[in-house]
Amino acid sequence: MKIIQLFGISAFASLAFLGSCKPKGTETAVSGDAAEKVYVAPGKYDEVYNFVSGGFNGQMNVYGLPSGRLLKVVPIFSVNPENGYGYSEETKPMLETSHGFIPWDDQHHLELSQTNGEQDGRWIFANANNTPRVARVNLKTFRTEEIIELPNSAGNHSSPFITENTEYVVAGTRFAVPTDDMNGDVPINSFKENFKGVISFIGVNKETGDMNLSFQIEAPGVNFDLSHAGKGKSHGWFFFSCYNSEQANSLLEVNASQNDKDFIMAVNWKKAEEYLKAGKGRKVKTQYAHNKFDEKTQTATSKMEQEVTVLSAKELKDICYFMPTPKSPHGCDVDPTGEYIVGSGKLAALIPVHSFSKMLKAIENKEFAGEYDGIPILKYESTLYGEVQKPGLGPLHTEFDGKGNAYTSFFVSSEVVKWDIKTLKVLDRQPTFYSVGHLMVVGGDTKKPYGKYLVAYNKITKDRFLPTGPELTQSAQLYDISGDKMKLLLDFPTFGEPHYAQAVPASLIKDQQVKFYNIADNKHPYATKGEAESKVVRQGNKVHVYMTSIRSHFAPDNIEGIKVGDEVYFHVTNLEQDWDVPHGFAIKGNQNAELLIMPGETSTLKWVPKKPGMYPMYCTDFCSALHQEMQGYVRVSPAGSNVPLTYSLNNKADNAKSPVKTAVTK
Amino acid sequence: MKIIQLFGISAFASLAFLGSCKPKGTETAVSGDAAEKVYVAPGKYDEVYNFVSGGFNGQMNVYGLPSGRLLKVVPIFSVNPENGYGYSEETKPMLETSHGFIPWDDQHHLELSQTNGEQDGRWIFANANNTPRVARVNLKTFRTEEIIELPNSAGNHSSPFITENTEYVVAGTRFAVPTDDMNGDVPINSFKENFKGVISFIGVNKETGDMNLSFQIEAPGVNFDLSHAGKGKSHGWFFFSCYNSEQANSLLEVNASQNDKDFIMAVNWKKAEEYLKAGKGRKVKTQYAHNKFDEKTQTATSKMEQEVTVLSAKELKDICYFMPTPKSPHGCDVDPTGEYIVGSGKLAALIPVHSFSKMLKAIENKEFAGEYDGIPILKYESTLYGEVQKPGLGPLHTEFDGKGNAYTSFFVSSEVVKWDIKTLKVLDRQPTFYSVGHLMVVGGDTKKPYGKYLVAYNKITKDRFLPTGPELTQSAQLYDISGDKMKLLLDFPTFGEPHYAQAVPASLIKDQQVKFYNIADNKHPYATKGEAESKVVRQGNKVHVYMTSIRSHFAPDNIEGIKVGDEVYFHVTNLEQDWDVPHGFAIKGNQNAELLIMPGETSTLKWVPKKPGMYPMYCTDFCSALHQEMQGYVRVSPAGSNVPLTYSLNNKADNAKSPVKTAVTK
Repeated sequence: MKIIQLFGISAFASLAFLGSCKPKGTETAVSGDAAEKVYVAPGKYDEVYNFVSGGFNGQMNVYGLPSGRLLKVVPIFSVNPENGYGYSEETKPMLETSHGFIPWDDQHHLELSQTNGEQDGRWIFANANNTPRVARVNLKTFRTEEIIELPNSAGNHSSPFITENTEYVVAGTRFAVPTDDMNGDVPINSFKENFKGVISFIGVNKETGDMNLSFQIEAPGVNFDLSHAGKGKSHGWFFFSCYNSEQANSLLEVNASQNDKDFIMAVNWKKAEEYLKAGKGRKVKTQYAHNKFDEKTQTATSKMEQEVTVLSAKELKDICYFMPTPKSPHGCDVDPTGEYIVGSGKLAALIPVHSFSKMLKAIENKEFAGEYDGIPILKYESTLYGEVQKPGLGPLHTEFDGKGNAYTSFFVSSEVVKWDIKTLKVLDRQPTFYSVGHLMVVGGDTKKPYGKYLVAYNKITKDRFLPTGPELTQSAQLYDISGDKMKLLLDFPTFGEPHYAQAVPASLIKDQQVKFYNIADNKHPYATKGEAESKVVRQGNKVHVYMTSIRSHFAPDNIEGIKVGDEVYFHVTNLEQDWDVPHGFAIKGNQNAELLIMPGETSTLKWVPKKPGMYPMYCTDFCSALHQEMQGYVRVSPAGSNVPLTYSLNNKADNAKSPVKTAVTK
Repeated sequence: MKIIQLFGISAFASLAFLGSCKPKGTETAVSGDAAEKVYVAPGKYDEVYNFVSGGFNGQMNVYGLPSGRLLKVVPIFSVNPENGYGYSEETKPMLETSHGFIPWDDQHHLELSQTNGEQDGRWIFANANNTPRVARVNLKTFRTEEIIELPNSAGNHSSPFITENTEYVVAGTRFAVPTDDMNGDVPINSFKENFKGVISFIGVNKETGDMNLSFQIEAPGVNFDLSHAGKGKSHGWFFFSCYNSEQANSLLEVNASQNDKDFIMAVNWKKAEEYLKAGKGRKVKTQYAHNKFDEKTQTATSKMEQEVTVLSAKELKDICYFMPTPKSPHGCDVDPTGEYIVGSGKLAALIPVHSFSKMLKAIENKEFAGEYDGIPILKYESTLYGEVQKPGLGPLHTEFDGKGNAYTSFFVSSEVVKWDIKTLKVLDRQPTFYSVGHLMVVGGDTKKPYGKYLVAYNKITKDRFLPTGPELTQSAQLYDISGDKMKLLLDFPTFGEPHYAQAVPASLIKDQQVKFYNIADNKHPYATKGEAESKVVRQGNKVHVYMTSIRSHFAPDNIEGIKVGDEVYFHVTNLEQDWDVPHGFAIKGNQNAELLIMPGETSTLKWVPKKPGMYPMYCTDFCSALHQEMQGYVRVSPAGSNVPLTYSLNNKADNAKSPVKTAVTK
């Protein structure tokens, strides 16, 4: 067969090294005091919150450092049957998109909100790669509060990076596509003509964190990969790496690896704002979902937006500039001063460092090497501060410790390398096991890194942990970077696939936690604020159960008169007002997940019973010594039955004080 | 309101102690060498696999001990968007039930298969609590291979406990319900008349592990809570704890806590087998799903079974006996010799230990205290070996170290207590933080415990870890039990809600792992065993894409001519033949999860595009340095379009060797 002869395995022998190399000396050198350094004694707190992307699990995983313990999985883009996220009536709207409800995505990067280039501990933003979206998680509740879909985009990879006062979250398109006002139904081989790489600027409200899609920039159809905002002196600019400047649409492993240099695109977003104000954008009709969770009603709503303003980089010549960068650049990282922009070309054998000051001068002096699809290309020498020579193979990402050092991950040579930003000299290198992708220094992409720890997020673990069949864990490795040399402290497996991560000292966040919701503030339309108010209401074939839960019973806990064909909505209010006393709720045979209801909260589970019978319901979260007793029954009768709809708690024949009540019918 | 006056919070003040007590002295005493004892250096393996139930996450979590590191989450009863479990066409049938497809359940107990009362490392069984089911996971692949639904049951809690040669997995009903041959549509207050507690005996094939529902025993309508098989001398018997001997159907926290003693039910299952053979069972018409994953075709099928044989404990007087046990017994544990049956009454202030030998004699001598719903009640004194006095408050579960010691968890007084099985003397106690449910000793419910480690699985963590909003992690605590006194070594948070757990020395399992699937053995009907065989086939509105993945491209990677209204099935075969090289697959806007395809495996993702456009697809698992290049495009045209269905890899105008191919239409 022709294709396999050309592009089968054998043809790629020369690329075999790109798989991964086992570092030489698989004997792991570990610091002698490593055990003591990572041990967090029972009852003691970790020093750092580490927010790690879940990759293809779609969630955010929160670890403690230095212990490497998984403290929480925050559901963002994937349904979470465990606590009802994406299954409860309140949270279903969070996963709505212009394509309908989507139960999954691929979550790659996380960015903590900043004020003046420093972490402020308010929110963390997350991207969805597959169906382009950006989410905001509140760091007081560890809940996803908002998700906004991105039109004109695909493969939302260089996202969600932020400006130094969280003015914008940006998102760049990895898989170029026709914009939504073109007919997307075009031949794939019309790529160069029709496909674009659109960059989105999402404005963030300073007080509330609410996001809106402020504008987009239409850029050439290349693959935007990663990005970082300028800071300090370079505040007002954004930098995006791209590959596939060849604009290939098939077999990219060969066809997008032809050019010796691709680009970092510098975007003058302050200038873009001026053009926007001046009405230079075109209004593009499209559809994108904007989903918000309201903490007062504890309910999400999904709104379909209809329009976005797009600025053309080709027409507005002075908002985008291309800086040539070898080869297939992946990471695009800006040092704490804002002067140095590090491009890590995954097929390069050196690390180029661009100078922001030189770039400004080069633009001023028009030191151009030509144009790419209408965008000025700056001369490589004109923007280059220098190159780190022989750093390793396959550089991917760089972070900083605030002491003048940079740390770069190398996928192919499987190591992390420390180098001096000013001298560009390599200072130290440590192997990773195996094939590190991102790395992270605590606060390492801000103006004021906390330093101390570096974590490498590895793609391959093979023989590093007890094996678990064909599907193995991915992993993280913790290094102490407080001294001159990096010291490996710990391997810990990760949940999902770790891509980027960020971390903050625990002190910034731990004392602001919401412990429970004040029942008095609960504005949920179906809240039941005391057992006295519990009731059952029929509206046609919809039955609303206003239910309460408190240790250790539901009210009501006996319901009769549900009929096949009914849609039953259990609106369960957790009356507890103390920390760490959730109640769960589930009913047998329900084609749905459970609810996990926090104290003071109301959540709703829909149930459409399919056959007559006796259906137990119960509390799924071990809440007290009498948790096992926290149960009830719902009787379902055939359609057309005349069993009246009634409900009760503790009805007994001899107890006239706890009568069976008849449901209200509206 | 009447109900709240009677049963509101204030009325339960006397039960407040049942919530949880903070152990005295919150200063945690930790062994001085704890850090060294739990530290597993990078590249070293843990000593023990710890299989921990996920509780309300529905999955099984595999930890390494002593490090407490989460090695893997094995999806069983809940969908897992991360790897496509419950979303791929191959795995959807695993979650079918008589109620339809269910995306979630509540997974409480795990039991490793045994031969001669010892762990054999072949399978682990898991229960679903909400919609009664039992699953079997293969410990060579860490995959769920089989799930069987249980008719006539609800609240499948005392499950899946096994006999000493894995002859049977048993499962008892926690929420009594009418059996399926009665009309389930009966008044709830006809509980005493109509509701039954059915016990299921699931036979397990010695060679293959295949399960079948051999028979059920209809027992009185009480709440069967936990169970364990006899072993050694008591092999042939099974023991089930129950509460709610009051047969309350509402407000059980009050109404099911009235009797000073409930029961442990002893079941002579060898005798039951004789009755079964003699045709004493009644055939009950019902429906229950039986789902199997076939490793050869890598595809699950779901079959709806129609009948089960039920033996009546009331009619067949000598298969079930009630042993009175104080108060609301929860755990029901049998020591390694099979002689001692420990009942832990969660509202009791002592631990009763029954003697199997005494029980046999009492049965022989008819030392009955009466009958309960037709079942003989043995006299408490007649079966009692003795009582552990003042052990703590709220005993729940007991395991054994094989050296004559028992370890019991106490929820209310929040501690684990070591005591001597023979003398019944308390030997040691250690606080837990907080409110331990189950505990586990490695191999602690077998004839030959491994001992060394004990883990307490705690329900409340409150101030033990960095806080994460209202929803906090649950946790485990690791103790060294190799010496006379238990030593606390480590706290580690858990994923989901840990109930029961089991553990094995790593040596029993680690060398039997399947590393990848041999492509030659792949019998999947849509497998594509080389790029030469990749193709696209249209059958009406169904489009089958026979696709391959290998580092780092899909074949084909350009597809045109899909139309709105089509159902597209991507059958992706991972051609890799090495460990730890999965490929992922996702396509933009799909209302579905991703696929994560192991080497040699074929998986299928369904996609029903809703609007015309250009849809990128890509590999979601970082597979090589050119992983970012592993992408393709699918063009979707409007319904009725005449764009022909074509596919290609690396088609270029100047390359006649890689033509665009036209799909076959059947």
